[in-house]
Amino acid sequence: MDLKVNGFAMAGGDDIQSYTKNSSYQRAVMDAAKLLVQNSIADHINDPPLATFRVADLGCSVGPNTFIAVDNILDSVKLKYRRKTDKIPEFQVYFNDHILNDFNTLFKSLPPNRDYYSSAVPGSFYTRLFPRGSLHVIHSSTSLHWLSQVPIEITDPNSPAYNKGRIHYAGAGPEVVDAYARQHATDFSRFLQARAEELVAGGLLMLYIPARPNGVPHSDEPFVTMNDRMGTCLMDLAKKGVIDENKVDTFNLPEYFATPDEFEEIIKSNGRFVIERMEKLPTANASYNPVSAADVSRGVRAVMAGLVGGHFGHEILDDVFSLFEQKQIEANDHKPGSELNLFILLKLNQDIAAAM
Amino acid sequence: MDLKVNGFAMAGGDDIQSYTKNSSYQRAVMDAAKLLVQNSIADHINDPPLATFRVADLGCSVGPNTFIAVDNILDSVKLKYRRKTDKIPEFQVYFNDHILNDFNTLFKSLPPNRDYYSSAVPGSFYTRLFPRGSLHVIHSSTSLHWLSQVPIEITDPNSPAYNKGRIHYAGAGPEVVDAYARQHATDFSRFLQARAEELVAGGLLMLYIPARPNGVPHSDEPFVTMNDRMGTCLMDLAKKGVIDENKVDTFNLPEYFATPDEFEEIIKSNGRFVIERMEKLPTANASYNPVSAADVSRGVRAVMAGLVGGHFGHEILDDVFSLFEQKQIEANDHKPGSELNLFILLKLNQDIAAAM
Repeated sequence: MDLKVNGFAMAGGDDIQSYTKNSSYQRAVMDAAKLLVQNSIADHINDPPLATFRVADLGCSVGPNTFIAVDNILDSVKLKYRRKTDKIPEFQVYFNDHILNDFNTLFKSLPPNRDYYSSAVPGSFYTRLFPRGSLHVIHSSTSLHWLSQVPIEITDPNSPAYNKGRIHYAGAGPEVVDAYARQHATDFSRFLQARAEELVAGGLLMLYIPARPNGVPHSDEPFVTMNDRMGTCLMDLAKKGVIDENKVDTFNLPEYFATPDEFEEIIKSNGRFVIERMEKLPTANASYNPVSAADVSRGVRAVMAGLVGGHFGHEILDDVFSLFEQKQIEANDHKPGSELNLFILLKLNQDIAAAM
Repeated sequence: MDLKVNGFAMAGGDDIQSYTKNSSYQRAVMDAAKLLVQNSIADHINDPPLATFRVADLGCSVGPNTFIAVDNILDSVKLKYRRKTDKIPEFQVYFNDHILNDFNTLFKSLPPNRDYYSSAVPGSFYTRLFPRGSLHVIHSSTSLHWLSQVPIEITDPNSPAYNKGRIHYAGAGPEVVDAYARQHATDFSRFLQARAEELVAGGLLMLYIPARPNGVPHSDEPFVTMNDRMGTCLMDLAKKGVIDENKVDTFNLPEYFATPDEFEEIIKSNGRFVIERMEKLPTANASYNPVSAADVSRGVRAVMAGLVGGHFGHEILDDVFSLFEQKQIEANDHKPGSELNLFILLKLNQDIAAAM
């Protein structure tokens, strides 16, 4: 699978195993951000453009969360403009995700009473996706922890960063963790570069990113713990002979959970944006109440089925995720609020913009 | 099926029965228009915009024809601009079709070396699809003969326009034909109204439409003849008891083939556009050489499968189209060049634009 070209996608369609039906965690992140979005737009958005106000949601998946995110943004923009003028611009919304995303399902679930013109843009957000200076607000939720690719070193048996017997970096040596961190820094910087070109002057970049609190060891970070747990399920199946152990060695998750300090350093060294806000989404995890370990397992499956099934074959997914559900019950370590979802609000650096 | 809301779509995917693999007739139409496109743009397009040049293809289906149409347009624009300036704008292309269109396949077949930003816009082109004043060229090929809906009167058993035992208007009474013509006039006028709002001042509307030559009776028009043939196949299957005759009575094709005179009248009475060119695409039909009646049948099936299968059930499609192929062989009436594909180039009426 060449992630650089095609990426991967959340489970499509709208059946019981779809992302559509199993993304209440991601929805809670969205809900938690609502007030922050409203305040950010009230404080930082400019006067209405003459013609169209354009918004993009990057890593939109198949809905319905993306429609809620877009409504939050447009409601906030309209609220701000109505205080100043009767002339509300027309809105155009671009839904972006990888080419493999199920855009057919996205389109079928578009809110019928929306008051914006909608379109879909396929491709990796680590590349340019939109014309220069064409967007007013760019948003991305629970997407930027996905890397553009697995760091090459960790799949090379001759590299000190070779990640044998694991699918992520919990418990791995520093070479593995460093390879992931470097990939993340490169990717996030490319992301900022592309977005800086696409935004209008005064445009906003609004990001919600699953992250790791400063000072917390990788292996104690709850998102990483979950990935490690899925890795042990795959190793168990390899030991039982259901899958080939070699296949586990060559499978790694293209995910990295960076700290606020790391984000700050990348943004400063990239130089295209200034940080207007960076803070923890306060209630994201408290408002997410999965009924059971089965719910958690279905949520993880909706996200991971494409990657895991693509590598090992989709026929093993039932085995993997029933094992995952068991281990989830045994571990009984879900602590609401322990994860960090970071809200980052960035504005184009006017010094740079002026020098262009 | 509520055509007003969801419309219908060409056969998706890229298998042997897909539109992707069975649209060489539509491709020939595109090729025939190439020189006309180039001349139209050379004569009528304005200076480059400051930022982005935006093009929309309405009724794009799943490719590859839409990519060829877009390349024809963009190549012509770049050719014109390069003669005047070094500063070529960035291009953004919107691919539009009904919500039921297979956009996933469209995205997977996007040309890898394209030099434009691409996006898909779902919805009926008989409504507004884009923000006001946002497009420079709007194109539509082999799509505007599709009506927004079957005229209501012809499915009403109590109406004099009730179209019993037929699926189209060949051989029908004047009430049926009039109902179709009225629907077409309403639809095409709504189309013009929406496009007039979406184009920038000086923008171009470029249409290739299957049509009926002035003075040729409906029943002698080759597109209508083909539809009539498919109707007789369905009636044959009803007589054999394979399908219910009532279902044939309630099935009608939402297609109308208007004459150049009719188009001219609608455009003039709508008033938003002036006709810059209206002429027959010269070689469309000559360059289309189906190898056999089987090819013709597969082409018709790729277009009609959604409509026919949606009404009668997809399990009857093999029966319908093998019968259609037989009748096509028996009739042996394919005369290359006898169809009329109309090229219409429209420009916004500046008097109206100035008065807005």
